[in-house]
Amino acid sequence: MSIQEIKLKDLNAKEFIEEKAKEISSLVGSGAAINALSGGVDSSAVTMLGHKALGNRLKTYFINNGIMREGEPEKIVAMFEKLGVHVEVIDAQEQFFKALKGITDPEEKREAITQAFYKDVFGKLVRQSNAKYLLQGTILTDVDETVAGIKRQHNVFEQLGIDPQTTFGYKIIEPLVQLRKDGVRKVAEAAGLPKSIFNRMPFPGPALAARVIGEVTPEKIKIVRMATVIVEEELATSGAFQYMAILHNDRVTGMRDGKREFGLQMEIRCWDSIDARQAHPTKLSYETLIKLANRMTFEVPGVVSVTYNIASKPPSTMEAI
Amino acid sequence: MSIQEIKLKDLNAKEFIEEKAKEISSLVGSGAAINALSGGVDSSAVTMLGHKALGNRLKTYFINNGIMREGEPEKIVAMFEKLGVHVEVIDAQEQFFKALKGITDPEEKREAITQAFYKDVFGKLVRQSNAKYLLQGTILTDVDETVAGIKRQHNVFEQLGIDPQTTFGYKIIEPLVQLRKDGVRKVAEAAGLPKSIFNRMPFPGPALAARVIGEVTPEKIKIVRMATVIVEEELATSGAFQYMAILHNDRVTGMRDGKREFGLQMEIRCWDSIDARQAHPTKLSYETLIKLANRMTFEVPGVVSVTYNIASKPPSTMEAI
Repeated sequence: MSIQEIKLKDLNAKEFIEEKAKEISSLVGSGAAINALSGGVDSSAVTMLGHKALGNRLKTYFINNGIMREGEPEKIVAMFEKLGVHVEVIDAQEQFFKALKGITDPEEKREAITQAFYKDVFGKLVRQSNAKYLLQGTILTDVDETVAGIKRQHNVFEQLGIDPQTTFGYKIIEPLVQLRKDGVRKVAEAAGLPKSIFNRMPFPGPALAARVIGEVTPEKIKIVRMATVIVEEELATSGAFQYMAILHNDRVTGMRDGKREFGLQMEIRCWDSIDARQAHPTKLSYETLIKLANRMTFEVPGVVSVTYNIASKPPSTMEAI
Repeated sequence: MSIQEIKLKDLNAKEFIEEKAKEISSLVGSGAAINALSGGVDSSAVTMLGHKALGNRLKTYFINNGIMREGEPEKIVAMFEKLGVHVEVIDAQEQFFKALKGITDPEEKREAITQAFYKDVFGKLVRQSNAKYLLQGTILTDVDETVAGIKRQHNVFEQLGIDPQTTFGYKIIEPLVQLRKDGVRKVAEAAGLPKSIFNRMPFPGPALAARVIGEVTPEKIKIVRMATVIVEEELATSGAFQYMAILHNDRVTGMRDGKREFGLQMEIRCWDSIDARQAHPTKLSYETLIKLANRMTFEVPGVVSVTYNIASKPPSTMEAI
């Protein structure tokens, strides 16, 4: 199964939306479909397409995994409600933190989050629903590194705890699979999503868990969430490709009220990049850097040290883990 | 026993040297004295005073603890030989690394180094020598936070494994105890030491062990030693108060030859300060920062990420641990 790429210059977003809505409609027929919305541009665009095609027969879930940014579930749900799309929030915080407990290896962390999402939480919702159609925001870039469609979709079923050999009728619909990120952004805009979504900064799948070095706990997520608010406020107008706060596991010495405090270090990364394949640290002014450091040390409990990344990718990567 | 401070403005360095040399001479008489030279300004000045007073009856040891900067023992010894002062190097690297093995807590690390120095290495040299006089580079600032002289000197004997109650005759001579750092620098210059010594940047007692977060091993010291060479080369003309490279224990993701590498992070700190009580990050140019990062990632094995400290003291401290 080869996928026909639609390049940005050949994309008529309005026509694409009409066409994909028709396709979804004819595939699902009078049945029901289900999808998970993360608030990223891909899953947001798919939600709009699915809703256009199926209306209330598309059931959209937002899984609150506890490792999102400040106010994220509320903001996303409210934004979709305004567009007439109802989203149901599933509070799965405990399940995710339980899955992450004791894990320090980044790859194992990622795997634990994937497993918790597919098997424990979303898989259960899919199996319990009467929806046999699953809408997914896969884009061509996601496919590039894996083998052809059928094998890939088989993997998704496996992750969901659904055996396609014994459980018949489940189908995955991937309306964005011919597009790259730039195409998805254009479709998202044409579908009526606000700029805060269609122009959204890349954010990793493991969310704030990717911004905590070492074991992920509710306390550490709370700290890196506060730091993320500060970074996003201060760097919103920086024009950078991506920026982030990373909570280190190493402890460093600080001084508070004349007393030694073995405290936390927060690293700030802010990247200039065209396509994320190469990236360089943004040349932020010292005024901005000092302000960031001051806010981190005075507003985020326990932080006594703040650093700014000065390495490039490669050999660095955008995210720390 | 109260100590009469000699302020910089009241210090006649030439006269001070003559006077202290006479004092040492009359105290030691026809006996022998011993001292440990670290290469810092205090112990270097004491070595010059002691040598002026006693000539070859002062035995000066340089303890190579394995956690010094690149070429340090050789440089210091050669420099003193040029001034006519013979220094004996003791290779104690194994003892120090053995003492540091498995220790991650910064305070325990410091204590292990102190113990290894006094009890195992220098204490043994003192006990084996026929020298009953010990020359020490204590300065007034060192005394400030401890109790009066007698108690303090008793502690030194204890650390050396010498019980002054049963072992008679040991005496500690502290010729610099009336001076602050600025006075010692003036004396060091007047005593003929080169600028590289009398104007030396502050360097911590635990040496490079203070620049390794987590357990100190020969491998990690080797890495941070290479990074220290780079920082000292690139920032020599920065005019900063102090600069350093710190090897983190946390691992971060990098990319080399298209492959993921879970590698090392090096932090650079460069401080502007008057008296080390308050300090701010030096506003290094991005040209310098990028050059530092490039050299770190390409010259120091395993380093995939480099950061620059942007927090101030307080709540940060100059050293990381």
